Amino acid sequence: MQISANNPTRKSWLPVSEGCDFPIQNIPFGVFLTKDDIITIGTRIGEYVIDLGAFHQLGYFKGIPLTDDMFMQDSLNDFISDGRKTWRLVRNRIADVFDAKNPALRDNAKHKEVIIFDIKDVEMLLPINVGDYTDFYSSKEHATNVGLMFRGKENALMPNWLHVPVGYHGRSSSIVVSGTSIRRPYGQTLPAGKENPIFGPSQKVDMELETAFITTDVNNLGEPVPVDEASEYIFGMVLFNDWSARDIQKWEYVPLGPFMGKNFASTMSPWIVTMDALEPFRCEGPKKEFKPLPYLQQKRKDTSYDIKLQAFLATENGESNLLTETNFKYMYWSMSQQLAHHTVNGCNVRAGDLMGSGTISGPTKGSFGSMLELTWGGKEPLTLKDGSTRTFFNDGDKVILKGYCTKDNVRIGFGNCSGKLLPPIKYKFPI
Amino acid sequence: MQISANNPTRKSWLPVSEGCDFPIQNIPFGVFLTKDDIITIGTRIGEYVIDLGAFHQLGYFKGIPLTDDMFMQDSLNDFISDGRKTWRLVRNRIADVFDAKNPALRDNAKHKEVIIFDIKDVEMLLPINVGDYTDFYSSKEHATNVGLMFRGKENALMPNWLHVPVGYHGRSSSIVVSGTSIRRPYGQTLPAGKENPIFGPSQKVDMELETAFITTDVNNLGEPVPVDEASEYIFGMVLFNDWSARDIQKWEYVPLGPFMGKNFASTMSPWIVTMDALEPFRCEGPKKEFKPLPYLQQKRKDTSYDIKLQAFLATENGESNLLTETNFKYMYWSMSQQLAHHTVNGCNVRAGDLMGSGTISGPTKGSFGSMLELTWGGKEPLTLKDGSTRTFFNDGDKVILKGYCTKDNVRIGFGNCSGKLLPPIKYKFPI
Repeated sequence: MQISANNPTRKSWLPVSEGCDFPIQNIPFGVFLTKDDIITIGTRIGEYVIDLGAFHQLGYFKGIPLTDDMFMQDSLNDFISDGRKTWRLVRNRIADVFDAKNPALRDNAKHKEVIIFDIKDVEMLLPINVGDYTDFYSSKEHATNVGLMFRGKENALMPNWLHVPVGYHGRSSSIVVSGTSIRRPYGQTLPAGKENPIFGPSQKVDMELETAFITTDVNNLGEPVPVDEASEYIFGMVLFNDWSARDIQKWEYVPLGPFMGKNFASTMSPWIVTMDALEPFRCEGPKKEFKPLPYLQQKRKDTSYDIKLQAFLATENGESNLLTETNFKYMYWSMSQQLAHHTVNGCNVRAGDLMGSGTISGPTKGSFGSMLELTWGGKEPLTLKDGSTRTFFNDGDKVILKGYCTKDNVRIGFGNCSGKLLPPIKYKFPI
Repeated sequence: MQISANNPTRKSWLPVSEGCDFPIQNIPFGVFLTKDDIITIGTRIGEYVIDLGAFHQLGYFKGIPLTDDMFMQDSLNDFISDGRKTWRLVRNRIADVFDAKNPALRDNAKHKEVIIFDIKDVEMLLPINVGDYTDFYSSKEHATNVGLMFRGKENALMPNWLHVPVGYHGRSSSIVVSGTSIRRPYGQTLPAGKENPIFGPSQKVDMELETAFITTDVNNLGEPVPVDEASEYIFGMVLFNDWSARDIQKWEYVPLGPFMGKNFASTMSPWIVTMDALEPFRCEGPKKEFKPLPYLQQKRKDTSYDIKLQAFLATENGESNLLTETNFKYMYWSMSQQLAHHTVNGCNVRAGDLMGSGTISGPTKGSFGSMLELTWGGKEPLTLKDGSTRTFFNDGDKVILKGYCTKDNVRIGFGNCSGKLLPPIKYKFPI
């Protein structure tokens, strides 16, 4: 599928520095707050954000059927609900207007003044009003590693895992945008060898290096979606850190799954990178151990994406420590398989729903997507640049996820997904 | 706490027949669609619904600080967000205006014509836009019964259960209002003794007899709520049937909990009965086996409610079969404990969030809240009036939950929570 907005030779009249995640081939969507307290939908090129509300008002989307206030909103839900045809028309138009050769806006200083902002002058907000949030568990390496630690070798990968894209429902309310600090959560934990739980701040706050995809309105209640059509309903992807308190999780999770060990916070990156922008980076996923059931069999083979993923720990002295490097392509189940599975019982999926990949771990130790795995349950601490060690995160640690694709000298990235862990709050009531 | 609207001697000028769930002491809140396609918020007395949008517009809420369009909305979320003081002012005012002795509206035929509708002339809609839906698992009898069947005697009640109000996140999108038919879901199941799963319609579609409570805005992310304050944030309760496909659930639920076995549908009753209306029916819950951790210890003892609950199966010939009779008071963990637990890690809870009780089972067989328990995993089928038997539900079966409290000749009820199970849809793609 040739999409002109992806042409690698295209340049913008806005400056884009080497290694920037946001060349004119990206055109992600986000929501931001200006210094004048105006909330609007925008896109980004280089170090500039583009107010699509003003862009639309000044006529640059002429000919594309859009409501007048489509971009003057505090979430992308309505735009996402409009569907793929609209997303493409809008993205292609933005690419055309910002093309180095197009003078229309380039040479209109007055318009540029109201449309273009320096990224430093705006505050990025959560780009969607998340309806339902589902988290999958689709990295075989991660599922195996956690299984080894929580349940031992015999029960590491459960018998259902190779048949079912296992997932569970998460908490939407506590999804926050990159840059939001997180409080170390309190909870019940069972000290090793004890019979009764204790209460206090979690001692094992962890990250989960994930991506997540955002859907449009997929189906009505009761109507499954075929796996080969599922990708039509996916708007784009973000980086996603599903913060986890391993000690709380371990005590609570049998039999109904993770709850309080997860729902205190999840961090998402502010720019939704569209599936159209990621199209050139399609690749094959891991070979399946056997054919899944027919409703999960995909016709095309390049159902994964080659997205490099990294996690960094920034200590309070400002030093940045690379914790892990992995890749989205290690995912055993594709996003289309996840979505087909999610709807096969008739469960309805709506615009603004978010589906996390689950922690993405690669095959080697340096590519694991959580501290739980990187330090093997805390037994093998990591040493940081400042000489200190970590099993899980300390108060004051900042966790930063990054992700990007490269091909033909084009780099499409997600920007940062970061969050700082603050000390537990002081309780005002007896605990 | 004396709330005048609960005075048992009060009568309304609207007729209320013996045994009706909606006397003037109830005043529940719901959303309905009129024959003229107008969606509005209303309450109910006897067989009449009261359009609170029109009631407000005609000045009957004079003196109560409410926005003009507070009741001309398609969900109660904004009203619920206004908080307990407003709920009480509004409920008390409605009680006053519909009091038999008050002529203001009683004797105004023109106003009555635009405010009051026959229940038969309106269609009840989902009363809230559900944000996050959490389902607890707080009936000890249910947890024990399911544990016995799924995991055997040794692991029936997990070690965490008596310490933790166990819960998990459910699916908001597939919550439907009473009266909506449900499709039998497809899914993966593992036939007994086999190694590989098969795909097809679930053979074990079950009900879960639950109540659910609806919250206002409870807390900001990171700020726990003390257990003794939690009840201030609960707006009211509904009946809730958390449809479950036991065969799908059994194959998928380890280790992340129920997902596709549950998220195809949950049915809620249309009228939210306020906690103020339920106040006279407070009672003590079961004795705790030991003191829970301090954050779950409640000062007051009457933390439960004496709500009689029933489930009926209506066969296609129209006959109604009583399946079970149980009571909300059997719940081991109170709603306040559930909410305190849910926020203790800082998880934020918002207006319109829904918290299910989990299946409510009593101590005896006739009081179990699911077919799984009533037929002991299908081993002991129930015989219906028409001579047919059931282990789980057949296509065409209608499940009806009812719930009510009685005291001082006042009956406060929830109305019906019903749903009919339709045959599985015909797939348009290969499965």
